[in-house]
Amino acid sequence: MAPHSNAILLISSPDRKGLVARISDFIYQHDGNILHADEHMDEEAKRFLMRMEWDLADFTLAREEIPSAFAPLAEELDLSWQIVFTDHSPKTSIFVSKVDHCLFDLLLRNRAGELKTDFSLVVSNHADLRPVSESFGIEYLHFPVTKENKTEMELAILKELCHRGIELIVLARYMQILSEDFVRHFPHRIINIHHSFLPAFIGANPYRQAYQRGVKLVGATSHYVTADLDNGPIIAQDVMRISHRDSLDDLVRKGRDLEKVVLARAVKLHLDHRVLVYGNKTAVFE
Amino acid sequence: MAPHSNAILLISSPDRKGLVARISDFIYQHDGNILHADEHMDEEAKRFLMRMEWDLADFTLAREEIPSAFAPLAEELDLSWQIVFTDHSPKTSIFVSKVDHCLFDLLLRNRAGELKTDFSLVVSNHADLRPVSESFGIEYLHFPVTKENKTEMELAILKELCHRGIELIVLARYMQILSEDFVRHFPHRIINIHHSFLPAFIGANPYRQAYQRGVKLVGATSHYVTADLDNGPIIAQDVMRISHRDSLDDLVRKGRDLEKVVLARAVKLHLDHRVLVYGNKTAVFE
Amino acid sequence: MAPHSNAILLISSPDRKGLVARISDFIYQHDGNILHADEHMDEEAKRFLMRMEWDLADFTLAREEIPSAFAPLAEELDLSWQIVFTDHSPKTSIFVSKVDHCLFDLLLRNRAGELKTDFSLVVSNHADLRPVSESFGIEYLHFPVTKENKTEMELAILKELCHRGIELIVLARYMQILSEDFVRHFPHRIINIHHSFLPAFIGANPYRQAYQRGVKLVGATSHYVTADLDNGPIIAQDVMRISHRDSLDDLVRKGRDLEKVVLARAVKLHLDHRVLVYGNKTAVFE
Amino acid sequence: MAPHSNAILLISSPDRKGLVARISDFIYQHDGNILHADEHMDEEAKRFLMRMEWDLADFTLAREEIPSAFAPLAEELDLSWQIVFTDHSPKTSIFVSKVDHCLFDLLLRNRAGELKTDFSLVVSNHADLRPVSESFGIEYLHFPVTKENKTEMELAILKELCHRGIELIVLARYMQILSEDFVRHFPHRIINIHHSFLPAFIGANPYRQAYQRGVKLVGATSHYVTADLDNGPIIAQDVMRISHRDSLDDLVRKGRDLEKVVLARAVKLHLDHRVLVYGNKTAVFE
Repeated sequence: MAPHSNAILLISSPDRKGLVARISDFIYQHDGNILHADEHMDEEAKRFLMRMEWDLADFTLAREEIPSAFAPLAEELDLSWQIVFTDHSPKTSIFVSKVDHCLFDLLLRNRAGELKTDFSLVVSNHADLRPVSESFGIEYLHFPVTKENKTEMELAILKELCHRGIELIVLARYMQILSEDFVRHFPHRIINIHHSFLPAFIGANPYRQAYQRGVKLVGATSHYVTADLDNGPIIAQDVMRISHRDSLDDLVRKGRDLEKVVLARAVKLHLDHRVLVYGNKTAVFE
Repeated sequence: MAPHSNAILLISSPDRKGLVARISDFIYQHDGNILHADEHMDEEAKRFLMRMEWDLADFTLAREEIPSAFAPLAEELDLSWQIVFTDHSPKTSIFVSKVDHCLFDLLLRNRAGELKTDFSLVVSNHADLRPVSESFGIEYLHFPVTKENKTEMELAILKELCHRGIELIVLARYMQILSEDFVRHFPHRIINIHHSFLPAFIGANPYRQAYQRGVKLVGATSHYVTADLDNGPIIAQDVMRISHRDSLDDLVRKGRDLEKVVLARAVKLHLDHRVLVYGNKTAVFE
Repeated sequence: MAPHSNAILLISSPDRKGLVARISDFIYQHDGNILHADEHMDEEAKRFLMRMEWDLADFTLAREEIPSAFAPLAEELDLSWQIVFTDHSPKTSIFVSKVDHCLFDLLLRNRAGELKTDFSLVVSNHADLRPVSESFGIEYLHFPVTKENKTEMELAILKELCHRGIELIVLARYMQILSEDFVRHFPHRIINIHHSFLPAFIGANPYRQAYQRGVKLVGATSHYVTADLDNGPIIAQDVMRISHRDSLDDLVRKGRDLEKVVLARAVKLHLDHRVLVYGNKTAVFE
Repeated sequence: MAPHSNAILLISSPDRKGLVARISDFIYQHDGNILHADEHMDEEAKRFLMRMEWDLADFTLAREEIPSAFAPLAEELDLSWQIVFTDHSPKTSIFVSKVDHCLFDLLLRNRAGELKTDFSLVVSNHADLRPVSESFGIEYLHFPVTKENKTEMELAILKELCHRGIELIVLARYMQILSEDFVRHFPHRIINIHHSFLPAFIGANPYRQAYQRGVKLVGATSHYVTADLDNGPIIAQDVMRISHRDSLDDLVRKGRDLEKVVLARAVKLHLDHRVLVYGNKTAVFE
């Protein structure tokens, strides 16, 4: 029994009466105290979405018993569900190329206790950021991916990830496109930062595209990676004001602040189990 | 029976186990379908705060029966509670002085169907805005309040409000301070807009104060009026960027946009029963 | 002589030394007092952009003499230039279809003295907003444009605009695409509001597109109309946070606030002669 | 001669005709090419404020000759003025106590080339952040200031600062109040970050004050330090949305992002010579 740990139940289901009553009763019957909950009916998708968090202090089920105890009710109510515990810190791997601002930002937030995860591996197609990674005591693996060796390199990366029990991948300005095969191993478990307000400026050089179009705001978008490039479910977005006085270099510089903050926000929301994917959209229970 | 109407239950209570289960079960037992719900435990105040909205379509209780059916449970669980119905449009009175932008904004939003209310009376200490009010077909009462006649004027206003069954008062840049006696008749039912980011620049001429202090943002705050001037529970706030190029007149002009939007947001939140006051703070269930 | 009026000089030119010195000396030699000026060299475009505003109080040239006095210098320095006076209120026509929020917003701001223009004509392809227009004492012309009669209708509209000396057209949610021929008559003198953060969600139903993509922010963009639909120089943009709780109707409702504010900002910037188009971009001298 | 360096002239003066013409002519006569300039007349303060930046590439005066060449004109026009060069990197000292996020942020931005300065010394009243400082190769001096030894400690600090030629001090969450005597040595050369939207929540524990007041936005303010605590000229401010779901700890955590960004923005504006203090306000030439 872990004191001071909470359980979180995430649910997506077809709408039907009694969902909240039946589920909260399950928790009540086992002496759980609900701390926060948020239920929403998406009237267009006809889906019921829910996040419920309760204190495990007096809960009469051991945490390993909870899933099997809940399963019959879940089946009866036709729920897609997930139960997680707030004291579980999943192992996360950060993928980088050459720019370091997102990597530093994530590692410093982690050190400050903001993110509930164990950043246990940095993967890169370049050797440049090894010193950063190692200064935080984190293992760094360099896979020099090329067009020719991409398939075998991805297999090698996958092997290392599996071997270490990595549950989440954060692409912190990783400048390689992952194959569909690779992505399939981590469904809604790869978070990317795209340096534009998607769906504007899809693809390469979004700041250059933004500069040339003469927009008055630049943005950043963090999303789950799916097989469809830059088109996965969006977790977080933000924008920043610019003007004709900003050169392309200024956009890149200012954009770094956006990228860091938006990626960190998305990673934190995911790690706090506040994101629920349904269709190609997310519900974010803030 | 009103089809397409929902019921909303707002609850504040000391924290205890089973609140969500017991309350949602009450709704489920009477065949209600919960559409949206939001529960939060304020760990510092040790209060449980909840907003639950359900479809009345198949609900087995007539709406006038609901309060008495719910009361025993509420008493057992020690709840502060309120049940309201989404098809009820409370009568609202707007108080104005001479500036018209908030008045126009509220009346136009109402005409566009954004606000669930019946703006049935405009009260003013000046005659200026009668034409605006009347162009929307709304009765306008002019009470030329002075220091000397304030008590009797407030009594006269109260009489007119009671007579018409006014449930909510919106101070849309009304430049008179209401007495404690008057305020006591409308607990958390008077919404004011203050043209600053409270608690900065309390009192008169906040834009002048902001201008002189040289701030880089100006704000607006909408709050419930209590006996303690500019100090009631805050419902909504927003800010806008300014610079040394902005004169005091620019601040006033730009501030109008803020005032309109922040006041309208607060009024809509209140009318949608998304605001719960506890202590001197609000929970806003957005 | 008009007291309390200022002159504004807008300049775009190839970069060369002495531009500021030569131009400000011209003003100084005629006893003008520069109140605000802003000069910027776009290093990528190699263009010098400038806005200079001076007090005409003691200026020794009559305003009708200024252009011919300035022309030789402009020619020598190879300037694209424009001189305007702050007490000139150009005649503006607002084009609308059926939704009224932008129309109301512009007319109310004008009444409040925010916009230096004479809104002298409302043009619509529907009859619906005639009462709004007339309640502000503004002439309303109804042209029931169809695919078949579009060319002749546009000619008829043009005739009315020319006849009245209209200098600026504001498309306040006008749901017709203007022909290239029509647009050519008003180069950088037609301002549109598009209800998305361009270039995201070009074309019809941007809110539906945004809703389906699951973005976390919705935007609005005001731009000059060119022959290339939704692709003209951007004047102003802004965004607003949304969540999975927002239905498509909520997006439309919330978007109205954005559309109003962004369109009004662009119109005011244009009327204050703060916008300079170069290439397909704008410099906005705020 | 430093190629690719620009000169920047900052001016504040009583308003009078010919200022722009006379000053830009000075630059033109010596073959300088103006890249950016911004002039503003504050009509309430009756002050003319200006920032002018020109390319030194072909400038016919050596940079050490410029001040004496400009002085006669400055005297004639009664200017407060300052000439600086963009390739000068002033030595800056960062003062810290125990929290490290602002320190890390400044050092990383500096390493990324965002800030034109040489962070050559970290001063602290605690020993905690020595490893951070040293990992960036920056000297760290620990002065255990107490009420009793404050005067002598400040003298010791001053001595070290003078000795190293420190021109700017950044208080990166330094939790000591500097004496008037100390501040007098660095007029408008000490930049502080206050973790509230000043003038709201002056003094200690602003997040607690904000939490208790129930505000819907928290802010951060960066300002020059003067003898009047929390009341110096404001350089930059920003805010962030919060709700009743945010605990005091959440405010502190979210506030860190604000503090970093607002402090870094102010330091960069100062280092880019974009801030001009007049009265107790700043003009920020962005």
